Amino acid sequence: MFRLKPIALVLLLACGSPAVNAANVILIIGDGMDDQQVTIARNYLKGAQGRLLLDDMPLRSAVQILTVEDTVDERPIYVADSANTATSLATGAVTSRGRISTSAGADQDIPTIVELAAAAGLRSGLVTTASVTDATPAAFAAHISYRLCENPAKMVDITYRDIPLGSCDNDLQAAGGPGSISEQLAASPLNVLLGGGAKHFSPQTEDGSGSVLEAARANGFTVLNTREELENASPGDRLLGLFSPGTMPVRLRGEGQRTAQPPQSSVLNRLHHYLGEVTLPEPMTCEPNPDARGLPSLKAMTDVALAALSGDNRRGFFLMIESASIDKQSHERKPCGSIGELQQLNEALASALAFANDHPETLILVTADHSQAAQLVPNGSMFTSYTVPVFTPGMMARIKTPEGGVMGINYATNSFAYEEHTGASVPLYGNRVAQGRVPSFVQQRDIFTIVRDYLGVAPGSALRD
Amino acid sequence: MFRLKPIALVLLLACGSPAVNAANVILIIGDGMDDQQVTIARNYLKGAQGRLLLDDMPLRSAVQILTVEDTVDERPIYVADSANTATSLATGAVTSRGRISTSAGADQDIPTIVELAAAAGLRSGLVTTASVTDATPAAFAAHISYRLCENPAKMVDITYRDIPLGSCDNDLQAAGGPGSISEQLAASPLNVLLGGGAKHFSPQTEDGSGSVLEAARANGFTVLNTREELENASPGDRLLGLFSPGTMPVRLRGEGQRTAQPPQSSVLNRLHHYLGEVTLPEPMTCEPNPDARGLPSLKAMTDVALAALSGDNRRGFFLMIESASIDKQSHERKPCGSIGELQQLNEALASALAFANDHPETLILVTADHSQAAQLVPNGSMFTSYTVPVFTPGMMARIKTPEGGVMGINYATNSFAYEEHTGASVPLYGNRVAQGRVPSFVQQRDIFTIVRDYLGVAPGSALRD
Repeated sequence: MFRLKPIALVLLLACGSPAVNAANVILIIGDGMDDQQVTIARNYLKGAQGRLLLDDMPLRSAVQILTVEDTVDERPIYVADSANTATSLATGAVTSRGRISTSAGADQDIPTIVELAAAAGLRSGLVTTASVTDATPAAFAAHISYRLCENPAKMVDITYRDIPLGSCDNDLQAAGGPGSISEQLAASPLNVLLGGGAKHFSPQTEDGSGSVLEAARANGFTVLNTREELENASPGDRLLGLFSPGTMPVRLRGEGQRTAQPPQSSVLNRLHHYLGEVTLPEPMTCEPNPDARGLPSLKAMTDVALAALSGDNRRGFFLMIESASIDKQSHERKPCGSIGELQQLNEALASALAFANDHPETLILVTADHSQAAQLVPNGSMFTSYTVPVFTPGMMARIKTPEGGVMGINYATNSFAYEEHTGASVPLYGNRVAQGRVPSFVQQRDIFTIVRDYLGVAPGSALRD
Repeated sequence: MFRLKPIALVLLLACGSPAVNAANVILIIGDGMDDQQVTIARNYLKGAQGRLLLDDMPLRSAVQILTVEDTVDERPIYVADSANTATSLATGAVTSRGRISTSAGADQDIPTIVELAAAAGLRSGLVTTASVTDATPAAFAAHISYRLCENPAKMVDITYRDIPLGSCDNDLQAAGGPGSISEQLAASPLNVLLGGGAKHFSPQTEDGSGSVLEAARANGFTVLNTREELENASPGDRLLGLFSPGTMPVRLRGEGQRTAQPPQSSVLNRLHHYLGEVTLPEPMTCEPNPDARGLPSLKAMTDVALAALSGDNRRGFFLMIESASIDKQSHERKPCGSIGELQQLNEALASALAFANDHPETLILVTADHSQAAQLVPNGSMFTSYTVPVFTPGMMARIKTPEGGVMGINYATNSFAYEEHTGASVPLYGNRVAQGRVPSFVQQRDIFTIVRDYLGVAPGSALRD
């Protein structure tokens, strides 16, 4: 029988918990949450001199976002989407836009942190305000060539108004693939999966044995559909919460549902943009979105997820929490929507920090997946002295702040129904546990490595020190 | 006679230099250098996976930018200019746009870090690629109500094409004021002042005793006008280098002097933006700007400044280095120009880091004063599947990168000759000395306090609430 010598025992005690004890990671993703979005939300929620909870995080770093063409030689592309970025965060790989934890060109499945955690006996959970089948959560627990293949009815020749968008023929189970995203999530080892997207669980599975929801139940998930069911969930259960058909309605909207609008030109101004007059949109306030009434907040989902993942758990967990509509509302030129979802992210962070206070072995990282279109611009140009109309060529919102100011917000990356992403590096925040583990500048895929090594879940990866 | 006991001697040696020894601060400002600008430059200069020297700085923080209306009640404004931001960095005060180290509304002069350093016996220097009278350098050593009052001939009723822009009547010496910016710089205690702006030193001083340049010579400055004179400068002299009439020409420009351009619409597209065709600008490379030939680089000026400030100096120094045209070129929609000036900043940083390697008591901070208009956007929209033309409503450049990619860069904050600033928080980088002195999130005025406290010079304005 092997016995520890006293000195070894002392070292073991002095150096903290042995590797078999719980190490938890909470990764919070603000989709599209770049510094423009953070500043806009801070100004509205806390004032120009205020601080968000995010700002109190002791560690700050910047993240280089990488994506490539969908070819074997993988030439760089400089603006990413939420599919390839979530793939980097979930797997440590750089892939092409639209891909869910599959490799560019070769279309190989890449193991995700959820799969590695499950294999090592850790629990895992995904919480989002999007459909749980949306790109960001999907990449943590599914593998598919195209993000829009969200359910068994959306696998082949996906179209929008007869416009072909893509197809996942090779991922069909009939072709030896893993099936659609919802089918993969239903079959996943996840302990907690909370968000929107109920409509992706109602179609029949490809094998025709029943709905995807029935398949999830057969795999041991308890299904929740309302805030009340969420609040009463049993912490011991594996939870699948689907609280809306698709993306969960956002918390805030513009007064009278207003979004950013184009400045209005006088007749003379239409002849030349230095002539005549241009009227900017009237300033507006933000108001609660009635569609969100009765739905669980991101914080409420986070609280239940943390209880479910940590209860009677001596091995630890990985939890991803996404505030998805910072991005989606920016695509739709709705600054109030993005502000409210950044508020939701900060509330979920408060829950994470409170949890880490009681469980000091918890690494918290907060980051964005890519930057976005919205720009905080002067309310009234810096060049108004010049006696010619000065105005954005795109769309603008002017938001009245509670402290009595007016913020100008510009959306002008394109003329289409949805704004573009942008390519800037994004912020990364960490709690005290992150200090010394996260350098001041990282590649997005490094975040996977930091998480994996901290959890100690990959063969050959260092156990947490 | 007082003698150190051995233990005191050991402590003294162990704890580093005593307080009377040199403590140096090098503050590097990238004007308008937000994360979009940094990422665009990194992609071009080092590749999508590359690192700028900036990225290797061990400390990263974010800076909240504050400005207010020019009134006594000081309501917040959410987008700043280089005058109020340089005032915050130089004095610790928050002021209104256009002001140079004077207070909003009340127009009080606020002591600058250069003045505090000089009073405490430290040397100081300002190096810039702008005119030395431009807002950023000016705020470190002058006090005036309006940034355009750069020389004695520009003090009253400043106009541009007959459009009145402002006036500095109260700052005239005849009114008991300190005179124009160039006059104040000529009379300043600065040891080193290098950049462009010779044209602001040729007018007669307000008192009619000669040119501003003659006043500077009378105050002890050795005047340098060429790269050769700079290279041969005597380290013991006080140096005023004026290497171009105004802003120094930038290093890089677009192929054939191209800037960002509006996409070209077909006739059908002009009827409705979803019809017809739109042609994006042809991709282009960056090329050396012949106008910069023979002029000193920012690094060359930095090297001379460091030698002049540190030679035979036992008390320490403050040096501000500005790469000014990251901003100016972004205003003019010239991405190659901004890229080249970000390269210049990194080269100057290399000199600063080499100096700090030999002088470990040197604090290096690198930051931006405000964010800017340029956005890294997809080269070809993310929505090209949708069979309608998708294009920016503003102006776009498509830059061929040395690694074989193409970056899309969007300028669309307004329809005027110059783009707007934007309001996002900006990056702050620090060397090893900064660690433990700079938290993860600061207000811009906190940078003044950090510098002042590190140098150990007299307290400045305590305008914090």
